[in-house]
Amino acid sequence: MQVAFSIAQGAVGQTSPNPPVGSVVVNHGRVVGMGAHLRAGERHAERIALDMAGEHARGGDLYVTLEPCSHTGKTPPCTEAIMQAGITRVFVSSLDPNPLVAGSGIQTLRDAGIDVQTGICPELADELYQPFFYFIQTKQPHVTVKTAMTLDGKIAAFSGHSKWVTSEHARLDVHRLRHVHDAILTGSKTILHDNPLLTTRLPQGGLHPIRVILDTQLVTPIASQIIQNADAPTWIFCGSTASKELEFNLLTYDHVEIIRMNDPDIAISAVLKELGARGVMTLLVEGGASVNSSFLQANAVNRIITYIAPRLLGGAGSLTPIGGTNPALMSDAKEFVFVKTEQLGPDLKVTAVPKGSDRYVHRNH
Amino acid sequence: MQVAFSIAQGAVGQTSPNPPVGSVVVNHGRVVGMGAHLRAGERHAERIALDMAGEHARGGDLYVTLEPCSHTGKTPPCTEAIMQAGITRVFVSSLDPNPLVAGSGIQTLRDAGIDVQTGICPELADELYQPFFYFIQTKQPHVTVKTAMTLDGKIAAFSGHSKWVTSEHARLDVHRLRHVHDAILTGSKTILHDNPLLTTRLPQGGLHPIRVILDTQLVTPIASQIIQNADAPTWIFCGSTASKELEFNLLTYDHVEIIRMNDPDIAISAVLKELGARGVMTLLVEGGASVNSSFLQANAVNRIITYIAPRLLGGAGSLTPIGGTNPALMSDAKEFVFVKTEQLGPDLKVTAVPKGSDRYVHRNH
Repeated sequence: MQVAFSIAQGAVGQTSPNPPVGSVVVNHGRVVGMGAHLRAGERHAERIALDMAGEHARGGDLYVTLEPCSHTGKTPPCTEAIMQAGITRVFVSSLDPNPLVAGSGIQTLRDAGIDVQTGICPELADELYQPFFYFIQTKQPHVTVKTAMTLDGKIAAFSGHSKWVTSEHARLDVHRLRHVHDAILTGSKTILHDNPLLTTRLPQGGLHPIRVILDTQLVTPIASQIIQNADAPTWIFCGSTASKELEFNLLTYDHVEIIRMNDPDIAISAVLKELGARGVMTLLVEGGASVNSSFLQANAVNRIITYIAPRLLGGAGSLTPIGGTNPALMSDAKEFVFVKTEQLGPDLKVTAVPKGSDRYVHRNH
Repeated sequence: MQVAFSIAQGAVGQTSPNPPVGSVVVNHGRVVGMGAHLRAGERHAERIALDMAGEHARGGDLYVTLEPCSHTGKTPPCTEAIMQAGITRVFVSSLDPNPLVAGSGIQTLRDAGIDVQTGICPELADELYQPFFYFIQTKQPHVTVKTAMTLDGKIAAFSGHSKWVTSEHARLDVHRLRHVHDAILTGSKTILHDNPLLTTRLPQGGLHPIRVILDTQLVTPIASQIIQNADAPTWIFCGSTASKELEFNLLTYDHVEIIRMNDPDIAISAVLKELGARGVMTLLVEGGASVNSSFLQANAVNRIITYIAPRLLGGAGSLTPIGGTNPALMSDAKEFVFVKTEQLGPDLKVTAVPKGSDRYVHRNH
């Protein structure tokens, strides 16, 4: 099953709107087939593994990270393929909360006399599927906020100077995050100040996320990289009173879309609803202190990834990862749980999720 | 040797001005003696281990974390005891930079025909001895700055409210830090705001560090806990122009001492010289943002221990671990290296030392 998860991990970020799935077929102690679902519309993981196994699948075991589908979508049901191949035992990690599946895949297999065991490697399933299950249940993207700070909690000097907080190891990892997310979001302040490209730049390439900009007054300059570079769609959210002329100018670029809110201000909840309706399952927020604060105040942080550099900047006016209005008490802080700590070159990468947020994960019992 | 270090670790904080030392005697594959130096003036680790081994030491091996002494101090030389006990091989982790020893212990043993190997477990030696070697070489205390912050780098709300950032697990660990340090330092702002006791409160007791307060104008209230509680000496540094009357009032308490600087301001370098002259080998700084900044600006941070709580506070005006004047550029940050990351209950404990600071550690080759 761990191999199946490793295979699935390799496809994270490229299967939207489907979740990544990995599968392994074993017969007489030998792996005879392996597969991952690589792209929506293409073969599912189980089918690839079974095709590879061919006649060696007969009498064998199939491991799959997610419940096999029992309905005909863009491809025929996987349960059918499993039965036809003569598999005798199926090991499933996670049930599929998609109402089109939701246990019926397991039931179909059991009805056909196949021994099905579920709930294998629940921690791996949590890590891989939480974003997808969250989207299916809420119709809103799963939000990961990424920050990078010094060991004394600074993201930039008072002047705004911030290049660079962390090492190239951490910065490369951020590009991996971009690859695995459907969309990336930042505010107009970051566009004005840093003029980022917001694309995925890995040595091996990578998929570019959709760029989402929160820009109440449409101050994004035509000369900025996200307008001049058309490698990824750029969706700019603006308030209801933003200038029509500025909108007109920005819309001369084909990859740019303006999404005008009903209110003068941009509410995070409205942004997430709109992104969900557009099929954005996973959103990476690379905001400054204000945008990050908006997401925190809206209780819209599903995960926070913090890169911590072993440096001390100091400065009472230096900038910190989350700004916004001042809470009165330490007890006003939002509670999270650390789920992973890794060393990346000289830096630390710390992952945390909201306390109790594992309620979105479907474990099997 | 790892056992020897474990034994030595148990005595950290109670051997000043001596370093902690552990020793194990092994004969025919069996441990026949163990010992740690527990307090200045009492038997050294080697002697305790040899006494325990008795006749079983003859022909055996002795492991010791620090080079055995070859001079007569408060106790007779350990080299003599090792030779008399009939030890045939000695394994030493670290040489002793104390000029009274500095290789002569090893030489004495080798001259007596004993096989001596050095440099065993250098990482453990680094961790245990860096503070002591730093003191011996600089005559100034080894400074550990302790901070506790949220995952977004906040130590308190804008109001100053800070109870509590971290969990009881982390707070208990801070009391362990107090036990192993000769002195604890904070600023008068912290005294006025938090009125801390600054003692060691562990379930099993513990040694109280000397309290050191930086208080330029002697504003420490008579009613504060550090004045009303006499469990530990309280040394208050003040500027040259501080009120004599306030000094007189504070000095009515026997455990209080006022140390008046030559300048109106308190320079960290002068404080460290004075503490070094008074035999303080290890100093724990539990300051607020200003005091921490003074130590950082003075390049006087030998180690920083940061407890990170999995909570996000936000607030552009919330307080951060290190304040002070605003550096212009991110590249003005001081460079450190992470040496340890641990989970303490829900919190992280991250230890970092200045880049290149291992130059103070004597490894053997």
